[in-house]
Amino acid sequence: MDFEPGASVQNAELPIRVALLGSTGSIGRQTLDVIRQLGGRFRVVCMGAGRDRELLLKQAASLPERPLLLALADEGAASSSSDSGYAILYGEAGMVELAAHPEVDLVVVATTGHAGFAPTLAALEAGKELALANKEALVMAGEIVTGLAQRKGIRIRPIDSEHSAIWQCLVGEPDEPDNRMRGASGSWPCIEELVLTASGGPFRTWDREATARATPQQALNHPTWKMGAKVTIDSASLMNKGLEVIEAHWLFGVPFDRIAVVIHPESIIHSMVRFVDGSAKAQLGIPDMRVPIQYALTHPQRYENQVMPRADWAALGTLHFEAVDVERFRCLSLAFEAGRAGATYPTAMAAADEIAVALFLEGRIRFGDIAGIIESVLNKHGSVAIAKPDIEAIKWADSWARQAALELL
Amino acid sequence: MDFEPGASVQNAELPIRVALLGSTGSIGRQTLDVIRQLGGRFRVVCMGAGRDRELLLKQAASLPERPLLLALADEGAASSSSDSGYAILYGEAGMVELAAHPEVDLVVVATTGHAGFAPTLAALEAGKELALANKEALVMAGEIVTGLAQRKGIRIRPIDSEHSAIWQCLVGEPDEPDNRMRGASGSWPCIEELVLTASGGPFRTWDREATARATPQQALNHPTWKMGAKVTIDSASLMNKGLEVIEAHWLFGVPFDRIAVVIHPESIIHSMVRFVDGSAKAQLGIPDMRVPIQYALTHPQRYENQVMPRADWAALGTLHFEAVDVERFRCLSLAFEAGRAGATYPTAMAAADEIAVALFLEGRIRFGDIAGIIESVLNKHGSVAIAKPDIEAIKWADSWARQAALELL
Repeated sequence: MDFEPGASVQNAELPIRVALLGSTGSIGRQTLDVIRQLGGRFRVVCMGAGRDRELLLKQAASLPERPLLLALADEGAASSSSDSGYAILYGEAGMVELAAHPEVDLVVVATTGHAGFAPTLAALEAGKELALANKEALVMAGEIVTGLAQRKGIRIRPIDSEHSAIWQCLVGEPDEPDNRMRGASGSWPCIEELVLTASGGPFRTWDREATARATPQQALNHPTWKMGAKVTIDSASLMNKGLEVIEAHWLFGVPFDRIAVVIHPESIIHSMVRFVDGSAKAQLGIPDMRVPIQYALTHPQRYENQVMPRADWAALGTLHFEAVDVERFRCLSLAFEAGRAGATYPTAMAAADEIAVALFLEGRIRFGDIAGIIESVLNKHGSVAIAKPDIEAIKWADSWARQAALELL
Repeated sequence: MDFEPGASVQNAELPIRVALLGSTGSIGRQTLDVIRQLGGRFRVVCMGAGRDRELLLKQAASLPERPLLLALADEGAASSSSDSGYAILYGEAGMVELAAHPEVDLVVVATTGHAGFAPTLAALEAGKELALANKEALVMAGEIVTGLAQRKGIRIRPIDSEHSAIWQCLVGEPDEPDNRMRGASGSWPCIEELVLTASGGPFRTWDREATARATPQQALNHPTWKMGAKVTIDSASLMNKGLEVIEAHWLFGVPFDRIAVVIHPESIIHSMVRFVDGSAKAQLGIPDMRVPIQYALTHPQRYENQVMPRADWAALGTLHFEAVDVERFRCLSLAFEAGRAGATYPTAMAAADEIAVALFLEGRIRFGDIAGIIESVLNKHGSVAIAKPDIEAIKWADSWARQAALELL
C-alpha cells in the first residue's frame, strides 16, 4: 500500500488542523502564541490540558474558530459542571481521542511526564503528523514509538530546542530522505557525533554541598530558559539533558557513544552535529521555545516571524563551553547508563525521576537526594527489568518504579 | 534541450576527473592532499600553476596516475626546456584549455587575483562543475559568472571557508532545488541575513597608528588561518572580508543590506545564516581549509576523513564576538560601497587592491596606505565606470585600475 501520511501535511490545503495536547502548560501556551503569529496557516481543532479547566476554556474561547473537541486528562475534573458549551472528554481516553481525531492533521504533544505516552502512540497509530515536546514517551518507549512511526511513515518532529537544533542541522544532509527521523533503524552514516549543549542550570558554579541543599525556589530559577516546573528542576539536575540524550538516540538512530554533552551557559548554541568529514553545524539564537515550536509546525518551510528575538551577533560578546562535572551532576551519568542498559531501565529512570522531582517540589527531599533515589530505583530494577518491553511491560515498569521511589522515603 | 551538466558529477562513474588550476598555491596543495585522502574517488587529470615549474612537475610525478595535461600561466616559463616528459601548455590560453578539457568533470580554480577570471568562465562555458577558491572572478564579474553558471545549470561550489559555511547551512532549506547557488537571480526567500565571521587578523587589537605602520612580516602573521600571501594581507586589512561580502552577494543572491560581518577572533564559527523565522545556523570547526575543500569536491556527500582536526567542544573555552572597527578597517566599508555601486567599481577595487598589496609586500607603501590607494582609485573611477560591463569592459577596468593605482605612487 502506497500510503504516505507524512506527506499529507506538506501537501494539505491550509489551514493545517492541529490537536494541541497540554495547551495550558508552558509549551502549550507558546504553541498557541506561534499559531496566532502564523495567521491562518494552522487551526487548533482539538485542545487538551491536565486539570486547569478554567484556562482551557479561556484558551478555547480565544481561538478564532471554535474547537471541535476539548479534553482534560484529570478524571477528577469530570465532576465539574459541563455548562461550558464545549464538548469535553476526560481522562487518558479523552486525550487519546483528541490525538486520533479524524479531523486532525498534526498532533502537538506538549504534556509532560508519562501523560504524553498514550496520546503519542495513538497519534502515530492514527497516522497523524506528530510534533513531540514530551520527552518521556521516547525515553520510556523509544523503540516502540520510533518503530511505530517508521511503520506509519511518519517523521517525528521534535520540539525540544536541542533536538530541533540537531534536526535543523541535518536537513539536506546525505541519507536524509524526506521521511527520515524514524528512529533506531534510520541511522545517518554522515553523523560522527551529536553534541547536546546544556546551560548547566542554576547550580553550574555551586559547590557540591550547596547544590545538595538547594531549595525548590533556587532550582526553579533557571538562568536562560523559561519552562515548566518539572523540566526546570530536571534542567537543574541535568536529568533533563540525560532524557534528551536518550531521546536523541532514538530520534536520530545514533549510538550513545556518539552523543556528547557540553556545558554552554549562554544557551545560544542549542546543539550541534559533527559530520564524518570533520565539518560541524550548529543551530543558534536567543533562547526562545517559540523558534523550535514554529519549526516543528512549519518544517520544511520557514515562515517569517518578526516576534522571535534576533541575536545581535556583535553584541553576543562571549560564548563559553566547558565539560560537565559528572560527579556533581550524577543524573546525567545515570541517564547514559540507563540508556545503554535499555530494557525497562529508561522507563524506570524517568518514572523515578518524576516522583523524585515531585517530592523535591513538595519539600519532602533535598535536591541532592534526587539522583540517589533514581540510582537506588535503578539498582533495585536489575532483578525485575524486562528486555524488549511491550506497552504493558513499560506501564508496569513505570508503576513499579514510582512505587519503588516512594518506598525509599 | 534537457542538458544537466550539474548532475553529471553526482551520477558519474568514479573517479571524478579533476582539473586543478593553481596547484602550487596554498589551496592547490591542500586540494591535492584532500584528493589523496579520499582514495580513488577523484583523479587529477589536468593541473596548472602560475610559474613554479619545478613544483608543478613534482606534483605531477606524485599523482597515482599520470596527468593528461599540465599548464603554466606564466608565458615566460615557455622558454624552459620541455624535456619533462609531460605535455605542458603556457599562458592564460593554456589555463583556459585545462579548464575546458573534454576529459574533465570538475574544475577547481585555486588561482588568486584576476588570473582565475578567464579559466572560470571557460570552465562554465564548457559545462564543467566548478569549485571556486578565486574571489576575484566573482567580485570582478559576478553578474557574468553567475549568469553564465545559471544558463549552464551549474552550481558554483565555493571553497572559501565562509561561503562553504553558508552553503552547508543552506542545504535542505526551503527553495534550495539541487541546482541553486546560481547567483543574483537565484535568491533564497528563507534567508534573513548572512553573517560572515572575520578573525579580525593580526591587527584586531592594534591602535590606528600601529596598524598603519605594520610591516609585511607582521601582516603575514595571521592568527588562525594559514594561507597564501595575498589573501593573508587582505585578511589583515579586512579587504578579504570585503571581497567575500561581494562574493556572497553573487553566490547566494542576497542584497548587501542583508549581509553582515562580525569579528570572531577564534575562527571557530566560519559563518552563519539567519532565517526569516528567527532561527540561525552556523558551520564550525577547527580552522582547516581542507574541510571546505573536501566539501566542495564531495557535495552533497560527506566522506569520512579522519585527517581533519576535530574540535574538543568542552575545551573550546570561550568564543568571542565583536563589531568591526570600520574606521580602522576602511577596506571593508570600501568593499560594501563598491559592491552597492556595482558597474565596474568592484573590478576597479579588486585590481587596485591587488596592486596595493603587491606594493606593500615589496615594501614600497605602508600598510595604512592600502585603503587610501583603493579609495583614490575608486574616486577616480567615477568618471570612467561602465554600467553592465561585458568581459572586455571588465578587463579594461582591471587594467585601468592597476594603472591608476601605480600612478598614485
